[in-house]
Amino acid sequence: MKKEPGKSYLELVEACDRFPYDEQPDFYKLYLPQDTRPHGMMRPEIVKRMPWSSAFSVDHAKTTVQLVVSDDTDLEKSCVSAFDTIVSDAIDNDLFEILHRRHSEPYRIVGANYFCHVERFSHALFGIVARGAHMTAYVQTSEGIKIWVPRRSRKLFTYPGKLDSTVAGGVKASDDPVQCITAEAMEEASIPGNMVAERLRSVGTLTYITMYDSPSGREKDLISPEILYLYDMELPADFELKPNDDEVEQFYLMSVDEVKQALANEEFKTNSAAVMVDFFVRHGVITQENEASYVELISRMHRRLPLAVVANC
Amino acid sequence: MKKEPGKSYLELVEACDRFPYDEQPDFYKLYLPQDTRPHGMMRPEIVKRMPWSSAFSVDHAKTTVQLVVSDDTDLEKSCVSAFDTIVSDAIDNDLFEILHRRHSEPYRIVGANYFCHVERFSHALFGIVARGAHMTAYVQTSEGIKIWVPRRSRKLFTYPGKLDSTVAGGVKASDDPVQCITAEAMEEASIPGNMVAERLRSVGTLTYITMYDSPSGREKDLISPEILYLYDMELPADFELKPNDDEVEQFYLMSVDEVKQALANEEFKTNSAAVMVDFFVRHGVITQENEASYVELISRMHRRLPLAVVANC
Repeated sequence: MKKEPGKSYLELVEACDRFPYDEQPDFYKLYLPQDTRPHGMMRPEIVKRMPWSSAFSVDHAKTTVQLVVSDDTDLEKSCVSAFDTIVSDAIDNDLFEILHRRHSEPYRIVGANYFCHVERFSHALFGIVARGAHMTAYVQTSEGIKIWVPRRSRKLFTYPGKLDSTVAGGVKASDDPVQCITAEAMEEASIPGNMVAERLRSVGTLTYITMYDSPSGREKDLISPEILYLYDMELPADFELKPNDDEVEQFYLMSVDEVKQALANEEFKTNSAAVMVDFFVRHGVITQENEASYVELISRMHRRLPLAVVANC
Repeated sequence: MKKEPGKSYLELVEACDRFPYDEQPDFYKLYLPQDTRPHGMMRPEIVKRMPWSSAFSVDHAKTTVQLVVSDDTDLEKSCVSAFDTIVSDAIDNDLFEILHRRHSEPYRIVGANYFCHVERFSHALFGIVARGAHMTAYVQTSEGIKIWVPRRSRKLFTYPGKLDSTVAGGVKASDDPVQCITAEAMEEASIPGNMVAERLRSVGTLTYITMYDSPSGREKDLISPEILYLYDMELPADFELKPNDDEVEQFYLMSVDEVKQALANEEFKTNSAAVMVDFFVRHGVITQENEASYVELISRMHRRLPLAVVANC
């Protein structure tokens, strides 16, 4: 097997899964009403700067933040409202750079026992799990498998000009991952819904905990636990992907060797690189026999999140 | 989706991945020479009963067992010999029921920086990682995917009469997983080597930590961290699997619904049930939309083992 210079597969996965594995006892755990399982992890400096309302009980000795609602007849409404109040306060007073001084779409609080959500830009302040969906489209050819890879627009705020998963997006609070990927397939790649319904194959998840800074570094090492729902789609050789919005600059149909080289050169968006590594594992490109870190990198891409991920009632 | 009575997918995976996630500070860690990473985890009662030689330094305060060799010019030979000495002593004096009073084939110490091995029957005494390889053969039919499922011989010592992965076996110390599965494919299912070479697809690993008792319960909760290397093989509809040794009673070509029901009824060998769950995840049978524990069960099947799994030099 040709050895590519540049980043190893394990280094690409480690760039996603950045949160330490040893316990970090000074991080605060965030609790929802009537649920003993943590739903978020917060750095002490974020806890200090958050404009908590009386609905949140912060215990610095136990390093916990407990949401307590007076009206438990409608937990969903009470919880959403409690988060809205403090996030709006933080936006209005520009307390966190990561909020970009504006409101964003709602993200579901994964594993909550009722439908609860916070604004997308705020999830990494609370260390709440974010959900994404990534689809890899490929074609079987006489020269082996080829993969449809888009280049992100140079005008995007995040990862401009980087290579990406064929189709990907954050999952809106009210959506299932399949709804997300079906909508994105049309928006980003002009793949019609009936083709998605016929050919989309659910193939698992990636789970990891990443950390990132706000754009100018005002907030550092924000904690972002993430679930990516993964899909494969085999396409006919004569079907061509075309950008349908301004987020994609161009699609390439790349050989496995071309993708390997682009990964090694760090040309992919960080989590899309991990998605491609997982695709290579499932399609027999990366194997125990050709990759020394095989076992380690598979575990690192499927981290057990130390937060509720499934409703328990 | 039809709801099967019986065991859930998560319960099947939990039956494999039984070791607690919270730290167990009274377990001893086993260290090899010139390597700071643990290679095994031992229960205190096993440490007490093991007939350690002077090559092993047991520290009860630190709960560590360190192998120290006087001759470091040939670490491989020294380490193999040190383990052989104490395992032979334990067999001769019938100190552990799990050793069955006889010698067994060598199992590699995974992640060691040189080729080191211990006897198969002893690996769960030391809590050393065991390696297996499991292959799932399937056929595309007009009624959907069908899976080749063997029933284990009723005469086998372990899991007699249970359903199993199409082809599976423990990986011998000197073998790669592909060599293991190629040999087992012929031995257990009469699949010729050229067919394996052409159709075998490497699709990942399962990693988990199971615990089991010796047959009459003399040793309880032995720790067995395990790596299963996974393979899929799509077969032509007219190719029939036939037992080729006395380990398989019969092969069935089962529909997805039949396999689901057999899983729910606990008809599968414990780790082969998890292999089938992973197959269902990768083939879009189990999805986020139809399985509440989807994210949790995927993480549980890909546990990060708290031991060296990759050589670091």
